[in-house]
Amino acid sequence: MSITLADLAPSVLQTQYAVRGPIVSRAQELERAGRDVIYCHIGNPQTFDQKPLTYVRQVLALCQYPALLHEGAALFPADVAETARRLLEGTKHGLGAYSESQGVRCIREAVADFISERDGIEADPEAVFLTDGASKGVQAALRVLINGPQAGIMIPIPQYPLYSATITLLGGVQVPYYLDEEHNWQLSRTLLEGSLAEAERRGVGVRAICVLNPGNPTGSVLDAGNIGMIVDFARERRLAILADEVYQENVHLQGDRFVSFARVMAEKGETSVSLFSFHSISKGFLGECGQRGGYMEVRNTPAEVAAQITKLQSVSLCANLSGQVATYCMVRPPRPGEPSYPRYAREREDVVGELRRRAVLLAEGLNRIPGIHCNIVAGAMYAFPRITLPPGRTDDEYCLALLEQTGVCVVPGSGFGQLPGTAHFRATILPPTDRIRVVVDRLAAFHGTFR
Amino acid sequence: MSITLADLAPSVLQTQYAVRGPIVSRAQELERAGRDVIYCHIGNPQTFDQKPLTYVRQVLALCQYPALLHEGAALFPADVAETARRLLEGTKHGLGAYSESQGVRCIREAVADFISERDGIEADPEAVFLTDGASKGVQAALRVLINGPQAGIMIPIPQYPLYSATITLLGGVQVPYYLDEEHNWQLSRTLLEGSLAEAERRGVGVRAICVLNPGNPTGSVLDAGNIGMIVDFARERRLAILADEVYQENVHLQGDRFVSFARVMAEKGETSVSLFSFHSISKGFLGECGQRGGYMEVRNTPAEVAAQITKLQSVSLCANLSGQVATYCMVRPPRPGEPSYPRYAREREDVVGELRRRAVLLAEGLNRIPGIHCNIVAGAMYAFPRITLPPGRTDDEYCLALLEQTGVCVVPGSGFGQLPGTAHFRATILPPTDRIRVVVDRLAAFHGTFR
Repeated sequence: MSITLADLAPSVLQTQYAVRGPIVSRAQELERAGRDVIYCHIGNPQTFDQKPLTYVRQVLALCQYPALLHEGAALFPADVAETARRLLEGTKHGLGAYSESQGVRCIREAVADFISERDGIEADPEAVFLTDGASKGVQAALRVLINGPQAGIMIPIPQYPLYSATITLLGGVQVPYYLDEEHNWQLSRTLLEGSLAEAERRGVGVRAICVLNPGNPTGSVLDAGNIGMIVDFARERRLAILADEVYQENVHLQGDRFVSFARVMAEKGETSVSLFSFHSISKGFLGECGQRGGYMEVRNTPAEVAAQITKLQSVSLCANLSGQVATYCMVRPPRPGEPSYPRYAREREDVVGELRRRAVLLAEGLNRIPGIHCNIVAGAMYAFPRITLPPGRTDDEYCLALLEQTGVCVVPGSGFGQLPGTAHFRATILPPTDRIRVVVDRLAAFHGTFR
Repeated sequence: MSITLADLAPSVLQTQYAVRGPIVSRAQELERAGRDVIYCHIGNPQTFDQKPLTYVRQVLALCQYPALLHEGAALFPADVAETARRLLEGTKHGLGAYSESQGVRCIREAVADFISERDGIEADPEAVFLTDGASKGVQAALRVLINGPQAGIMIPIPQYPLYSATITLLGGVQVPYYLDEEHNWQLSRTLLEGSLAEAERRGVGVRAICVLNPGNPTGSVLDAGNIGMIVDFARERRLAILADEVYQENVHLQGDRFVSFARVMAEKGETSVSLFSFHSISKGFLGECGQRGGYMEVRNTPAEVAAQITKLQSVSLCANLSGQVATYCMVRPPRPGEPSYPRYAREREDVVGELRRRAVLLAEGLNRIPGIHCNIVAGAMYAFPRITLPPGRTDDEYCLALLEQTGVCVVPGSGFGQLPGTAHFRATILPPTDRIRVVVDRLAAFHGTFR
């Protein structure tokens, strides 16, 4: 039989992932036809001028080809060689063998140490799952949470469409809750309660709430008070929490800091709320998207449930070992006094400083355009400005026209969800400053002409 | 809410994956307690004495850390450097950026060239999907084929439990068909028709047939005639075909050769049967399990269906780039006359020759044990001997007792499925010859004592 569209499951056909949707396909067509396209649609730092950290790549090269430990010894700092040796020993058989389904034990130990040091709390390597990017961790968590067609998962609006797409594919119900744009996209207990009540009225059994902090696409950074409110809500309403914390190193404002759900829960002595938290090597200052590395940490969840997650992971054997090694490099970077540290610190500061500058530059530039309003980009890698459109026009049409007329590729707000009657787009802060200026200039020229 | 087992979906709880199941967990416990465990449960070559091919690892090291192209130029053959340069150019931004969802275009072109050369047929890079190991390709194909709770997928018995596990997770129906152990595990049209008719009687809408060639766990190699019969069956019964061809380089007998489904379909002029075929860097002579690389090629399937597969891939962004690069190295190895070729050819022949010797050694050794009968291991990496058990005893009990008493870890036939009333186990041919002799000796001593 030759399969046709009509043969596919409705859940497959209904799944949408705007970040790589039709506008991006059109952008690629235009580029192939010779147009100057500026891709602002996705957080893919190394497609711009961001360089990988030398430390990470040196460790990976040595792990891939251990003969370099001897033949190329002069080319690598001593601590890099030492790290590679430790990882090769920890994996037992190098990067070419399947690891345990949960991931290499010594790397999970390093992840647990990282969480302990970051938050001043205990962390268990057996509760850490190494994954091919955070996406695979989120999918695994949703897989165990969605237990039937009436199982609901609360997701923010706007949200990163990995969540909506995965819930649709798994046959669950999206339960949207709005973020409060007027208050820098914080969560509001009133809005959460309203969303939950509305879902329950429809017979949906709500199982969990997803929170992205720092926010994607919103760029918001939640404070401990807001996180504490969410934890209280989850406990009282018997929900699990999925905490997407992949942008934890991308906090741009002086005075702001990232606060993890694990830390807030520990400070509150909260032990009854299951927490799945996610981190990734793709964001932060590593930007190693293509390596596909990350982890999921599970808390307040019985061992037999964790064993079920491990079983599901085992069906695909294990996360890729390069991504696992890069995850180790993220959670166990060079320390002051180690030979690699000065270069590592310099490269890290270059990236962090650049991203801070670009976050300000893009938001300020957008706010100078009449008809565009952008909140401060406090965290993550995106601006999500609100745009005023002529009556009857949509942000899909706007973004397509913007692409066709100016070559600037952004994602319409509809791909993330938004309050009815509002329109937005998401643009990444990643292009070099001169390109961000071009983006702002082209938008300024375009916006007023869109009818 | 703290999640409990009772909260999980039945499909999650019912999913089984014996290759990493309770016997393997017990083996790890014993090893931690100081026992000498011989792991024969999984095809993970580099956990034994198999070394990665130097060519593959040199290319990966250069792609991970391109500074070596200058600083370490003397350490790498010219063609390796040239290959790394070509890949870095083809990826545009190296291994740290997300690629297209389908995978890097130039690597998909190399896969298409490989298929063309192997089979003397046309192949389209747009029909190639690079995946994190073949497992993820199989899961993607089953995802688009299973379109409701009565959607059936024919799987061989015995089968590799990736198939049964994924069908269960996706909420489809396993439609088992028996392989004919008396005829070296070939497929029989009579058995296929019987299986299909039985499923239809139960109201199952059968969508596809999965075939593993060379077979896992059976070690069989199908000839063109048997494959042609399967293609005819699929056309007449309006089924798609999933052809798991990950062991295509593991054909051990002089005179045998691997024949692909794509080739047989092309020779028959067959254009109405959708074909999904899978290949992997984990098996063959690369044995790069931990790198998680592979591809799926799709034939006789409309572009709009392929676009749906791409959309689903895009939700997880892309396969890991190291695995993509290793896949390139598999499909575009050094050629005679290129500087890397002599070493590459020598290393390849070492692996292939060793595996051939071990396949014979294990099967002959098993057949010398009264009460154990093993077919010739013509292909793949496993023996799947039939064992005679005392009345009322199971192969689960047998394998657990074998592990406890001898430290030999094999997987019970029940994990793959088998004809009722028969019992088997799967053991990999991968251990070094002296360890295979130990396995056979321990089995010989154990078998007669199992009551």
